[in-house]
Amino acid sequence: MANFIFQKTLIIGVGLIGSSIARALREYSISSEIYGVDTSDDVLEKCNNLNILSSGKKDLKDYSCQFDLIIICSPLSTYKKIFSSLSSFVKKPTLVTDVGSTKVSVIKDYQDACNNQDVKFVPSHPIAGIEKSGPEYGFSKLFENRFCILTPINNNDDFIIDVKSFWELIGLEIQIMTAEHHDRVLAMTSHIPQLIAYSIVATASELETHIRDEVIKYSAAGFRDFTRLAGSDPIMWRDIYSMNKNAVLEMLGRFAEDLSTLQKAIRNNDTKFLEKTFSSTREIRRLIEKLGQAGSFDPTESGKNKKN
Amino acid sequence: MANFIFQKTLIIGVGLIGSSIARALREYSISSEIYGVDTSDDVLEKCNNLNILSSGKKDLKDYSCQFDLIIICSPLSTYKKIFSSLSSFVKKPTLVTDVGSTKVSVIKDYQDACNNQDVKFVPSHPIAGIEKSGPEYGFSKLFENRFCILTPINNNDDFIIDVKSFWELIGLEIQIMTAEHHDRVLAMTSHIPQLIAYSIVATASELETHIRDEVIKYSAAGFRDFTRLAGSDPIMWRDIYSMNKNAVLEMLGRFAEDLSTLQKAIRNNDTKFLEKTFSSTREIRRLIEKLGQAGSFDPTESGKNKKN
Repeated sequence: MANFIFQKTLIIGVGLIGSSIARALREYSISSEIYGVDTSDDVLEKCNNLNILSSGKKDLKDYSCQFDLIIICSPLSTYKKIFSSLSSFVKKPTLVTDVGSTKVSVIKDYQDACNNQDVKFVPSHPIAGIEKSGPEYGFSKLFENRFCILTPINNNDDFIIDVKSFWELIGLEIQIMTAEHHDRVLAMTSHIPQLIAYSIVATASELETHIRDEVIKYSAAGFRDFTRLAGSDPIMWRDIYSMNKNAVLEMLGRFAEDLSTLQKAIRNNDTKFLEKTFSSTREIRRLIEKLGQAGSFDPTESGKNKKN
Repeated sequence: MANFIFQKTLIIGVGLIGSSIARALREYSISSEIYGVDTSDDVLEKCNNLNILSSGKKDLKDYSCQFDLIIICSPLSTYKKIFSSLSSFVKKPTLVTDVGSTKVSVIKDYQDACNNQDVKFVPSHPIAGIEKSGPEYGFSKLFENRFCILTPINNNDDFIIDVKSFWELIGLEIQIMTAEHHDRVLAMTSHIPQLIAYSIVATASELETHIRDEVIKYSAAGFRDFTRLAGSDPIMWRDIYSMNKNAVLEMLGRFAEDLSTLQKAIRNNDTKFLEKTFSSTREIRRLIEKLGQAGSFDPTESGKNKKN
């Protein structure tokens, strides 16, 4: 029989990430029972059909039992309410972590809404995901070979090590940093690329109909790389831009400057500058491939049956 | 014995695309002999080691035979010189086509430099490619299920049908349009996404060292999708922006406006506008997937051994 580390785990928000965690918890025999909370009947029904959870309910209050580990996997705008519910629900020492893409706002929400010493909260961000949303797209290997950033509220909290172990067990490598630093790095590595992807796809969708249809048709020429990101969950991203406004606006300012410089070089036929810039960016790609963080892109349609 | 359609085919520029065409010509028994011209000794040596060509030489003048089909696969800045060489080299009716990413400039170069009636030129653009360059990365299936745009100089030319058949034989579906229209569509579908990818990677590479290293480390969060494009051949892209300057600047203007609108919405906490924009872009992604032009992205590293 397996030696489970947790008896009862609760996942709040059982979409793509939540359901992937649930699958990993089961597959690696980390938790004996896996419960879920989701406000959507549709999501709960899918989880039921896919046999992802021991049981799923619409509200934390619907549970009469306590949990050993609670993972918040819902949009950032729901956190404050969730922390407030946890504050009154939790009656025994309970590890609590989350997967939110911003960390300063999460800590603020926690501090504003939770004053229960039994809630042992370690803010976390597993850097993993795909552009699909919903429990039907989750898979247990999503976290393999990816990083998880922890931004502890007090670096001396002895339960940090337990949260760290949990993430490591499902395949993640842990990095620890401040919430402020996390938000700045993620602005550049995630929030800005995503915003640009949304923006260029929006530009394309506003073109005259006949050109727009052709842009879709010939998207294999490069445009499709942006549309993958732009297929992501709108609510999740709306919340991220609200919660990480300052870092996003700062990085966006830098990007706009660099784009203007390239625009000017094109206008002035400054081919030397263009060639130099285009050569320097190759190096970054090489480093990402070397680090094993590039993923695998198949330019044909032959990989279509795989999870993607 | 196979019935070859062409006896002797010449590929000028045997990099990623040229070598992929050579492989397809051989694999599908389309041409009996496949010759190459490339100014790089390194490329010719690789072709020789990989047994891609019947023979490869550094200059068109090094050939004493004539050809049935010539395909230009070199950077756009070399076209004028190539057309001029072809004008004096070609002594019998010869099909000539190309793979250039802009078409107005190609037609102008042809008209300026070639006045040989035996050169039967049909400007073409197979919309296929990956971010790697060099003959070692080519593969015969690169063109499968992709579109090839032809922009004939005279729609009545009877040899258009022969060039069309050639492209179809290696797996492409043909579309015919004017060179001007091609350049506008490709600006949006290819040249702007590529420029933005270069720009954001350049922004990241100018960050303070410690943040830059982290952006690379956590690139799986979205940034990596842009770096794939930014790994592309700098010379090829430098030439594209010179040759399609006006359409690129027009589309870039539209993109910059849309990005500013999103920036303002973030600054003003206009979450409704953000959610609406992010929802509308999902539809475009769905259409691209439906058309079978999305490629396949594997978020794990497990597909690493495949061509990518």
